[in-house]
Amino acid sequence: MTIHKVIYDTDPGVDDAMALVFQALHPEIELLGITSVFGNATIDTTTANALYLRSRFAPGVSVARGAAAPLHRAPPAPLGWIHGDNGLGNIELSEPADTTLDARPAHEFIVDTVRAHPGEVTLIAVGPLTNLAHALEAGPDIARLMKQVVIMGGAFGITGVLGNVSPAAEANIMCDPDAADIVLGATWPVTLVGLDVTQSTIMPNEWLATIRDGAGDAGRFVWDVSRHYAQFHHDSAGLEGIYVHDASAVAYVLAPHLYTVRKGPVRVLTSGIATGQTIQKPTTMLVPAPDWDERPAQSVCVGVDAAGMLELYKNTLFKAL
Amino acid sequence: MTIHKVIYDTDPGVDDAMALVFQALHPEIELLGITSVFGNATIDTTTANALYLRSRFAPGVSVARGAAAPLHRAPPAPLGWIHGDNGLGNIELSEPADTTLDARPAHEFIVDTVRAHPGEVTLIAVGPLTNLAHALEAGPDIARLMKQVVIMGGAFGITGVLGNVSPAAEANIMCDPDAADIVLGATWPVTLVGLDVTQSTIMPNEWLATIRDGAGDAGRFVWDVSRHYAQFHHDSAGLEGIYVHDASAVAYVLAPHLYTVRKGPVRVLTSGIATGQTIQKPTTMLVPAPDWDERPAQSVCVGVDAAGMLELYKNTLFKAL
Repeated sequence: MTIHKVIYDTDPGVDDAMALVFQALHPEIELLGITSVFGNATIDTTTANALYLRSRFAPGVSVARGAAAPLHRAPPAPLGWIHGDNGLGNIELSEPADTTLDARPAHEFIVDTVRAHPGEVTLIAVGPLTNLAHALEAGPDIARLMKQVVIMGGAFGITGVLGNVSPAAEANIMCDPDAADIVLGATWPVTLVGLDVTQSTIMPNEWLATIRDGAGDAGRFVWDVSRHYAQFHHDSAGLEGIYVHDASAVAYVLAPHLYTVRKGPVRVLTSGIATGQTIQKPTTMLVPAPDWDERPAQSVCVGVDAAGMLELYKNTLFKAL
Repeated sequence: MTIHKVIYDTDPGVDDAMALVFQALHPEIELLGITSVFGNATIDTTTANALYLRSRFAPGVSVARGAAAPLHRAPPAPLGWIHGDNGLGNIELSEPADTTLDARPAHEFIVDTVRAHPGEVTLIAVGPLTNLAHALEAGPDIARLMKQVVIMGGAFGITGVLGNVSPAAEANIMCDPDAADIVLGATWPVTLVGLDVTQSTIMPNEWLATIRDGAGDAGRFVWDVSRHYAQFHHDSAGLEGIYVHDASAVAYVLAPHLYTVRKGPVRVLTSGIATGQTIQKPTTMLVPAPDWDERPAQSVCVGVDAAGMLELYKNTLFKAL
């Protein structure tokens, strides 16, 4: 059995929480730590939520508090209408038994942990990429020591959209485009799991009800935490279910065969009306493009076996009972 | 029978020539004029080619010489390796019998012609959009007098690419992104026929041979003019055939039912590493986007019945015999 040593960089966030449950319950993932970041809510809220989730689903795992704001911009307003005012769908949150925070900021925790497990750490990042950029600055050697970075973020137009918070930008990348361009330009292997596959993977409410009814406490949590989020999807996209954003990054780590991947350097636009857009130069493209050609080829998910992804999620929760 | 009164704005160009033959031979198109523009070659070359094509396939149609350079940038280098040094696949070009040019520059010809046929003119534009921007400046009233503008240009990622001359830009738009942003922002109905459909429509060399053998002089011309272009497609994309760029704009005019269209305002990036990118905000997208929301909804082709398009082209040439 392959064991993936994972650092989970997250801004919980409803789908962040659903992805945390997925990781915490899957036997092939060993969570080395959870690092919080601003994004879906303020850093205070996302860190408190990380502590709550740790106590409930991943006891004993380190939690390190991360960035409160992007590298060079003002922090975005919390997305209360999507994730609830408390970031977790407005469900009632009891005080966690364990509120211990690692003494280090998230980026230092990342650097130390990667150095302690050279070549072994998978970083799953599902929020703004600020902590990763800080980590690269503090310890550039982690680029060669990291096994892989799997990011929920970006959009490439395959399914008709280049973004969800603007016509050209996906929310996580838009929160800190400067950090994203740094992270995608570093010489570590990055896979982007973006809207092209996450909006093609939908958990219907009916399906979520089977999780609620059959997967114990985790199943009930997944149902409860996703009700407000499902309402948002209903109102904004007419969906009777939810897009599977952050959990898709976890699924990619566990079952990369479910995804079709395209290789090539990726840039992030950091100015102009399309700020936050991710643009890949596929390796099959022959024309010179100096702004891309100097950078490492990264992987972009362009196709997904959505039924297979849902099956993996469901089985993970059911088998953990 | 619907008759489409057409002004053909073009930078011939191999596929421009193939699209001219298509228009000239189709009984439902009445060519009111041909306007030249720099692009695939210099304005001298494209204008000479327009005169050659007029003499051979559209005798009596006015030809007006257009812009030699983009609005605010230096003219691009001619694309000899794609279209041949003479812009027409290096085939031998006899001196045209009629070398008369309209006394007006292209943009004035466009303004006058549209005013003379209010609500009736379809402008098919398959080169840089410079003449159109000049025409809008010289006669802003043509925006409401034009029936429609059909442009070969742009790319939206549906088939995996946002461009063919950079990771983000299609060649026609890239030649004059400032003009393109003006043209797409004007209050006339524009349809973009971009790489999403033109690279999904391929004329195989075998199929072109049946045109050569069965469609008389026009068929032989289409074969001859496309040999150098086919070699480029072979070398650059491994194709045994050619993408159908400019003729697709003509097909859209004649048979819009062959195309799936998405509505929404379109912007063109005019600075930064993605200069020349076309970005649509689909009308189904609900998030506010001030840089798009003030502009008219235009149409973008996102799907095509490629077999139907080829059939239309072939039938047009065969029936004209």
